[in-house]
Amino acid sequence: MEPFADRLFRRVREKRSPVVVGLDPRLGSLPKHLRVAALAEHGPSATAIAEVFVTFFERVLDRVAPLVPAVKPQLAFFEQYGPEGFRALSTITSYARGKGLLVIADAKRNDIGPTMSAYADAYLGTPEFWEGVTFAPFQADAMTVNPYFGSDGVEPALESARNHGAGVFVLVKTSNPSSRELQDQLMLDGRPLYERVAELVSKWGEPLRGSAGYSSVGAVVGATFPSEAERLRELMPATPFLVPGYGAQGAMARDVVSAFDSAGLGAVVVSARDIIFAFSKPPWNSRFREEEFDLAAEAAVLQMRRDIEEALLATGRSWDR
Amino acid sequence: MEPFADRLFRRVREKRSPVVVGLDPRLGSLPKHLRVAALAEHGPSATAIAEVFVTFFERVLDRVAPLVPAVKPQLAFFEQYGPEGFRALSTITSYARGKGLLVIADAKRNDIGPTMSAYADAYLGTPEFWEGVTFAPFQADAMTVNPYFGSDGVEPALESARNHGAGVFVLVKTSNPSSRELQDQLMLDGRPLYERVAELVSKWGEPLRGSAGYSSVGAVVGATFPSEAERLRELMPATPFLVPGYGAQGAMARDVVSAFDSAGLGAVVVSARDIIFAFSKPPWNSRFREEEFDLAAEAAVLQMRRDIEEALLATGRSWDR
Repeated sequence: MEPFADRLFRRVREKRSPVVVGLDPRLGSLPKHLRVAALAEHGPSATAIAEVFVTFFERVLDRVAPLVPAVKPQLAFFEQYGPEGFRALSTITSYARGKGLLVIADAKRNDIGPTMSAYADAYLGTPEFWEGVTFAPFQADAMTVNPYFGSDGVEPALESARNHGAGVFVLVKTSNPSSRELQDQLMLDGRPLYERVAELVSKWGEPLRGSAGYSSVGAVVGATFPSEAERLRELMPATPFLVPGYGAQGAMARDVVSAFDSAGLGAVVVSARDIIFAFSKPPWNSRFREEEFDLAAEAAVLQMRRDIEEALLATGRSWDR
Repeated sequence: MEPFADRLFRRVREKRSPVVVGLDPRLGSLPKHLRVAALAEHGPSATAIAEVFVTFFERVLDRVAPLVPAVKPQLAFFEQYGPEGFRALSTITSYARGKGLLVIADAKRNDIGPTMSAYADAYLGTPEFWEGVTFAPFQADAMTVNPYFGSDGVEPALESARNHGAGVFVLVKTSNPSSRELQDQLMLDGRPLYERVAELVSKWGEPLRGSAGYSSVGAVVGATFPSEAERLRELMPATPFLVPGYGAQGAMARDVVSAFDSAGLGAVVVSARDIIFAFSKPPWNSRFREEEFDLAAEAAVLQMRRDIEEALLATGRSWDR
């Protein structure tokens, strides 16, 4: 399998888009008419919720698939609804892959080695289902992981990268305000802890560099801290950045440009609510009806893509290089 | 609901046992006759695997329930088998609770606030299933969380502790060798990072002290680093410790005593493989047939309980105080 980083940045270049659509099915934010229809058919059940998730995302994916390289399902919002939630996740990731999209499972899983192997298998591998029978319940192209256990907690995911061309995004500097409590702790040498994590990520990724120079071991670097992102870009020149925090969390196109290289590569930027729930937010809610949630999502993606391209061009970065 | 810490240590005292049985269904380690029977009935399917998990753990739980305060399902081994794996998890946690056991979901989940709320709801709360309809897909009494996001990533779990009497165990110092790469990083003041985490855990737990003095916000402190555990016990006097690493990972009864107070409370010690797969390991494999896996598990729990009680007594700790 072609290394993840190559698959990712080929799509970014072809689609002229570093936008990753976050799939965060918050039940209360989903279109009411879909909820009412599923409730009428199935009653208030996990089956009804799973059906709403699937119907909603299939229509959104139909519209956004030509415009973005990847989607990022946030597992928590599926997990919240139990086994049926996971069944919806599995259906939706398959559908996205069928549309040529890469799937980045936002799992943030972490554990000691043998246990982490089970998580890596669930999302990136082909666990032994039975003697000699394998399967992949939630087939993703990449997953996010938390580095707190150190190397031996990340190694099973790296193994999936080596064996299956998978991608791994390690949390380095997250977008939330209290990320400073641990991640910004200064170490003996005066550097913040996240720089130590960046060093490890760079080391883990070194043997996994693809043909474009980028590794399949990436970093999660919040868009809400642009100056830190700039410093981290210097420290991890071959590391793809997955940048959350755009839009709803306050970051704008100008805040994310430092994550990119001069060819407009090296980073992808995630937006979830502002895209998938665009139908209920200004300015889109005055242009689209709730039933047109997929068209609103498409319009929001096009806007975000344009905003980022302009910010990249304004800082001398371009996909035409 | 009675605070988690009170529920936990009342059971420890009543059962004279700080042993927590880890539920780690590694498919290849499960009794062959159960696998063969399920395969014959269902073919090589996730349904068959879920049935093996449920049959196996119901029999183990029948035997060990009178002997331990709690069980700790390791989510990775269920998640690996997709939606059916989660269905088995849900069935097994219900069964355990029906036997009076506390369930500690070993999830190590972590994310920014609103997303972490979904994880906390999945395991510790009652998410809104539909307008006004709530449910609890994986009802647990406590869950493990990873602190890398800082306070706002842990707060949703603390809210479950406040509102539902749930417990939270925060990773502080894990049992794996490479835990030193981040957790032991020295900060500006010369202390390791895990001491900073310990401070936060202590602070988060302060408003959640139960009648026995212990908080419902606990810490995961690996048994494989006894001197660190001793130091952490001093730093977090009111924090319950969940101690992994016993047995298979090399720690012995004498390594865990420093996690306990003089009344034999303040800590619970986890063992998974050495108990649930005792039927296949010395000395139990010469005394029990594979079909007697539940009796072997019972014998292994009794042995571990005895070993810990002796080590506690030898260091002046006792449940009779």
